[in-house]
Amino acid sequence: MPKLYNEALQELAGVFDRIDEQAVDAAVAVIAGAGRIALYGVGREGLQIKGFAMRLYHLGLKAAVVGDMTTPPVSGGDLLIVSAGPGGFSTVLGLMGVATAAGAKTLVVTAQPDGDAARRADHVLTIPAQTMADDRGTNVSVLPMGSLFEGAQYILFEVMVLKLREQLGISTEAMRANHTNLE
Amino acid sequence: MPKLYNEALQELAGVFDRIDEQAVDAAVAVIAGAGRIALYGVGREGLQIKGFAMRLYHLGLKAAVVGDMTTPPVSGGDLLIVSAGPGGFSTVLGLMGVATAAGAKTLVVTAQPDGDAARRADHVLTIPAQTMADDRGTNVSVLPMGSLFEGAQYILFEVMVLKLREQLGISTEAMRANHTNLE
Amino acid sequence: MPKLYNEALQELAGVFDRIDEQAVDAAVAVIAGAGRIALYGVGREGLQIKGFAMRLYHLGLKAAVVGDMTTPPVSGGDLLIVSAGPGGFSTVLGLMGVATAAGAKTLVVTAQPDGDAARRADHVLTIPAQTMADDRGTNVSVLPMGSLFEGAQYILFEVMVLKLREQLGISTEAMRANHTNLE
Amino acid sequence: MPKLYNEALQELAGVFDRIDEQAVDAAVAVIAGAGRIALYGVGREGLQIKGFAMRLYHLGLKAAVVGDMTTPPVSGGDLLIVSAGPGGFSTVLGLMGVATAAGAKTLVVTAQPDGDAARRADHVLTIPAQTMADDRGTNVSVLPMGSLFEGAQYILFEVMVLKLREQLGISTEAMRANHTNLE
Repeated sequence: MPKLYNEALQELAGVFDRIDEQAVDAAVAVIAGAGRIALYGVGREGLQIKGFAMRLYHLGLKAAVVGDMTTPPVSGGDLLIVSAGPGGFSTVLGLMGVATAAGAKTLVVTAQPDGDAARRADHVLTIPAQTMADDRGTNVSVLPMGSLFEGAQYILFEVMVLKLREQLGISTEAMRANHTNLE
Repeated sequence: MPKLYNEALQELAGVFDRIDEQAVDAAVAVIAGAGRIALYGVGREGLQIKGFAMRLYHLGLKAAVVGDMTTPPVSGGDLLIVSAGPGGFSTVLGLMGVATAAGAKTLVVTAQPDGDAARRADHVLTIPAQTMADDRGTNVSVLPMGSLFEGAQYILFEVMVLKLREQLGISTEAMRANHTNLE
Repeated sequence: MPKLYNEALQELAGVFDRIDEQAVDAAVAVIAGAGRIALYGVGREGLQIKGFAMRLYHLGLKAAVVGDMTTPPVSGGDLLIVSAGPGGFSTVLGLMGVATAAGAKTLVVTAQPDGDAARRADHVLTIPAQTMADDRGTNVSVLPMGSLFEGAQYILFEVMVLKLREQLGISTEAMRANHTNLE
Repeated sequence: MPKLYNEALQELAGVFDRIDEQAVDAAVAVIAGAGRIALYGVGREGLQIKGFAMRLYHLGLKAAVVGDMTTPPVSGGDLLIVSAGPGGFSTVLGLMGVATAAGAKTLVVTAQPDGDAARRADHVLTIPAQTMADDRGTNVSVLPMGSLFEGAQYILFEVMVLKLREQLGISTEAMRANHTNLE
């Protein structure tokens, strides 16, 4: 394998060597027990959040992406999942405030467990990976800016989907049947 | 009222003087009787289609926008609503082919009832307004390009929502309760 | 013209009977003089903002929609245009704070000139139309929720595009040449 | 590292053991030499394409995502990059036809080098990974549906960005300065 792919994969492996698997399982349990699940993220983190949302929908969960046209309101029993890799974003914090005021719970995926978003969240899932909060200086990732965090999100969310699929007893065919043909 | 607003409103009034209200009512009936409803449009037409999708969702219909993360597949009993003001677009025609092959019905909103999209559609709703198919030469709208068509879509879709609300017996409060608070 | 279209158009006419044309011209001047222009709105207001953004791009201005993939940062000399019909939204207020802190100016389009967003804005453009801040009780629009405001946005933005086109000396053909063919 | 992460990373490593690095370098050269670059993909592939587009924009290239509000037209000298993991999608094939007719070149990222999209493309970049074209039966990925392909896209695109950054002589700080603050 050419060197750059290997470096990227090694760095991702390093993230998952450090991940707190109990926190992952706790997040999976929160998702499995939620009513409506709304998801939100900005920039490239937001893309990974959207990919996770689509798989939650394939699993038969009541998932929706904030900003899509058919997203419901959230209230008691519901869950807002947000991404805040470097700690906080104005729109993420704004939506967390709305969700909390409406009685919904919040789950933050972040690299900064002491950041603004994590401190306001009901549940925190920490990915120990570089973001734009710490991408300068020496000893940085071969990947630019927040790319290591975003790539780790991709793999983490896939693993969470596998765990949810098993816990919820959803077959691969059932997931597949929920995939849109309008492409 | 300053002149430009008046001209725009007069042109919009002219569109609705010419609209075929029976075709509007037929389209409303198709929507009211559909299973899943997927909606798609490109560019600024697509924006009006999205706004219509949100209101259909507020009405409690199973509406979703193609490209959003939680859009279901369509098949028999379902409906794909597309916009093709100037007659056809590659992606619109592609999706119509998929929907038809899957057994879903198609409803095209267009200014060109003899255009490519209309000819392939199960149902056609014609808005007699300028699009980019006829925006050059003399005797054109004060509004640029397809703006008259897109503005007419806005008003037409609102009126269709009012008709659907009455037919389906949905209260204003029920619609309002479906509006997301995640903004 | 069937009654519902006429009622909608009459209500829209009423909005533009009441609009402050000097404020419109001031907003046009702010846009014409801006560096980068970022635009943002939520829900169906957001759709109208996006349509406006596309036309600003067609005019050759450096416009971009917040949340799109190729949106630049803003700073001194730049402008953030937001929509806040009923007064304020958490994400709108969050982004206004970021823009202001970075030295950019903010222009708020709203129905509530005393609302949270307007009070924090550098420039306010008021559309005197019903939103979800005042859509209940007697004497309400035939259109549901914020539809009157959103429809008025459509027409207002079109008129502003016409004014900008003239001020900037952009030909219809030049605008048209900026329209994407990837549809 | 818990087992599932390891399995996912091992499968990704297997993809890059099999990748044709000359094809990657050829794709990088095509991108570096293109005028305007438009990018498009559907579903979760589309999300990875969008993430790539944002990084191309950070590199200072004239990149834009099809469907965003400020996407230019393409013609001679320009490039359309599409994703078609399982071989082809109706909207992807439609847009490729438009781009080719307008004189632009096309680059397809796919797992099926003999598929419909690849056969019509000017340039093909093959990712040897499971998609929904071959996700059933025995000997399938631990990841569902097209997740292995999409994860491989993430890593491949990051590596291509590193190659482009070096070839174009763009500093990390210059990339960072193009990152939007409107989040």
